[in-house]
Amino acid sequence: MTSLFAKYQGIASALGAVVAAGGRNPFAVVIEKPVSSTVGIIEGRHTLLFGTNNYLGLSQSERAIKAAQDAAGACGVGTTGSRIANGTQSLHRRLEHKIAAFFHRRDAMVFSTGYQANLGMISALAGKDDYLLLDADSHASIYDGSRLSSAQVIRFRHNDPDDLYKRIKRLDAPDSAKLVVVEGIYSMTGNVAPVKEFAAVKKETGAYLLVDEAHSFGVLGEHGRGAAEADGVEADVDFVVGTFSKSLGTVGGYCVSDHPELELVRLNCRPYMFTASLPPEIIAATAAALEEMQERPELRLRLMENAARLHAGFVRIGLNASKQVSPVIAVTLETVEQAIPMWNRLLELGVYVNLSLPPATPDSRPLLRCSVMATHTPQQIDDAIEIFRQAAQETGATAAPAPLVAS
Amino acid sequence: MTSLFAKYQGIASALGAVVAAGGRNPFAVVIEKPVSSTVGIIEGRHTLLFGTNNYLGLSQSERAIKAAQDAAGACGVGTTGSRIANGTQSLHRRLEHKIAAFFHRRDAMVFSTGYQANLGMISALAGKDDYLLLDADSHASIYDGSRLSSAQVIRFRHNDPDDLYKRIKRLDAPDSAKLVVVEGIYSMTGNVAPVKEFAAVKKETGAYLLVDEAHSFGVLGEHGRGAAEADGVEADVDFVVGTFSKSLGTVGGYCVSDHPELELVRLNCRPYMFTASLPPEIIAATAAALEEMQERPELRLRLMENAARLHAGFVRIGLNASKQVSPVIAVTLETVEQAIPMWNRLLELGVYVNLSLPPATPDSRPLLRCSVMATHTPQQIDDAIEIFRQAAQETGATAAPAPLVAS
Repeated sequence: MTSLFAKYQGIASALGAVVAAGGRNPFAVVIEKPVSSTVGIIEGRHTLLFGTNNYLGLSQSERAIKAAQDAAGACGVGTTGSRIANGTQSLHRRLEHKIAAFFHRRDAMVFSTGYQANLGMISALAGKDDYLLLDADSHASIYDGSRLSSAQVIRFRHNDPDDLYKRIKRLDAPDSAKLVVVEGIYSMTGNVAPVKEFAAVKKETGAYLLVDEAHSFGVLGEHGRGAAEADGVEADVDFVVGTFSKSLGTVGGYCVSDHPELELVRLNCRPYMFTASLPPEIIAATAAALEEMQERPELRLRLMENAARLHAGFVRIGLNASKQVSPVIAVTLETVEQAIPMWNRLLELGVYVNLSLPPATPDSRPLLRCSVMATHTPQQIDDAIEIFRQAAQETGATAAPAPLVAS
Repeated sequence: MTSLFAKYQGIASALGAVVAAGGRNPFAVVIEKPVSSTVGIIEGRHTLLFGTNNYLGLSQSERAIKAAQDAAGACGVGTTGSRIANGTQSLHRRLEHKIAAFFHRRDAMVFSTGYQANLGMISALAGKDDYLLLDADSHASIYDGSRLSSAQVIRFRHNDPDDLYKRIKRLDAPDSAKLVVVEGIYSMTGNVAPVKEFAAVKKETGAYLLVDEAHSFGVLGEHGRGAAEADGVEADVDFVVGTFSKSLGTVGGYCVSDHPELELVRLNCRPYMFTASLPPEIIAATAAALEEMQERPELRLRLMENAARLHAGFVRIGLNASKQVSPVIAVTLETVEQAIPMWNRLLELGVYVNLSLPPATPDSRPLLRCSVMATHTPQQIDDAIEIFRQAAQETGATAAPAPLVAS
């Protein structure tokens, strides 16, 4: 009998090496208790959280918590049904109207996860006669959506509108529909997409454009509508996909569009139709968080100040930080042998970030993926920078010499 | 410019015909407010809910509601992270231990939806050198998982262990791993799988067996562990997949197994790794519902009594009901022209069930998919039977003549 797990030997030995090099499994961290949006108990210690997607800190919003509690009391803890059967309550439709209104769009669909939103929209929109054009650094949910779709899939170079243009022209398929998919902010590197240039390619070639604003919603643009708003090209975006599990602090996903056919997508979208809808308490908390986000634009300003402060600190201590300042700042290290002890030392010293190892990283070098929140205090950021300096020094992980300045 | 929506013309006209035949869109029903587990307000009317998956009524469990409220207060409304990054709190691990203990298994993985549990386990287990053997009537999440997987996919006849055996033998691939996937109870028809016979085939052929107990968990077996427990063959099941959005009344999915490699699956399972984990309030509500389910075995007994009562009533009034008595009872109608007015009339008279139209149905005839809850009162069931009788009579939807007996 051949083992189904023969294919797992590589993972087993890779994980064994990671644990041996650092003393713990970096992918099995447990937050024993969240203390606030910025601090959690890990291994019994108060730890600064610099590796979440909780950009506005709204997972701990008083208003969202109260809304969740009230909805659980009034409506129960789940719907037990699909959106197209018994799983649509008034709450779900109200949230869809609220999201559509926020984006000034005709309608919105709410999905049970952001992963399923990408999976669903991409597979439902791009059929066997269509072309799907994906940024090479697309999120797993976009790639998985392309696998579920029957379309021909073409990758273009990351954040490269010229390469996209050339590939569409080379197709020489004027009678096929083309769907271009880009992300507002890329989750591992913080790279911001040149949405304006992608929109120009879309118009020039007659393609459709889907922008996944998962990490840019609530973050970029004057009203937090994302990278397309920041670039002033929202009218050229056919579909905005996003998630509730980042800026809004809950879980779930959405798609907004002006295309009236979105209503029909509800009946042709397997990851929407064949899953239970979100429970009332999640829907209510999400609606409350969206209101709070709209009423408190200062959160977005503080987030960007904090991002700039962390980025400047990394540069000051000689780390190789992301070129662009965004709430996601990747620190690139040269080798896995540096990255693993450095990540472990950071955790021991009280800072949690995300460890990303090749081949999962964009350029085959390891990353320490850091993220910033509006709710981080300047002191917390300075403390994190000092801990990075110390950990880099102790583990020899920094390429440039670390100047002896405290934060 | 070719429209992405050209492919939607068929759906548009099909939906138009359904709405024209009955006056409303059956896939856009809104429960304006849940009044209890068994009653919701639809179109302003108190409506008996006979089309949910809320088998034990636990979506309205006081204990689960309290647990959700407490967890939201203590931990916030979301984790904003993947299980392999910042999205594992102690609550998540405790729920996994509780589920593993309930099944007497080594470990459990908790997923953000049941859909993602099937998607993730099937795609992570069955690789390019493996064979995936699926029951022809498998749920969409199983088929979608098979699309994400690189394995060769073979379908066998629904609930037919002999056909499975023949197909495995015909493969003549002794060196390939084989994963057989069946469901405990099939969601549309209520058909129960002959798990004992499937387990025998698995042993005879050296295949692995995954049983999706989504609709049988909390329903079948002395302890509610599902169809494999009812058949006394749990030891032969390698992987049990299930969901929280049916018997437990919340949302999410799980897989339990004794294979120690399950720990490694966490690092090779895209629908687990690339999605935000479930919020604390959902995890806490699910754990509370699981405790209630274990402490109140009478819920399961009442559920089965209620299923038998509804089934007997359908037979009495001459409807073509599922052969097997289970909490899912499908009423098969001969034509779509009967089914649509019948479904609409039921709703107008105060009973909500699920309408399923071909080609989505197993045998090309339309179904009214009914489901029963432990919390239905005998009177509610009798009222529903009477409303079925009246609606069938008014719309001419019943094949056999409806005897003039009230419930």
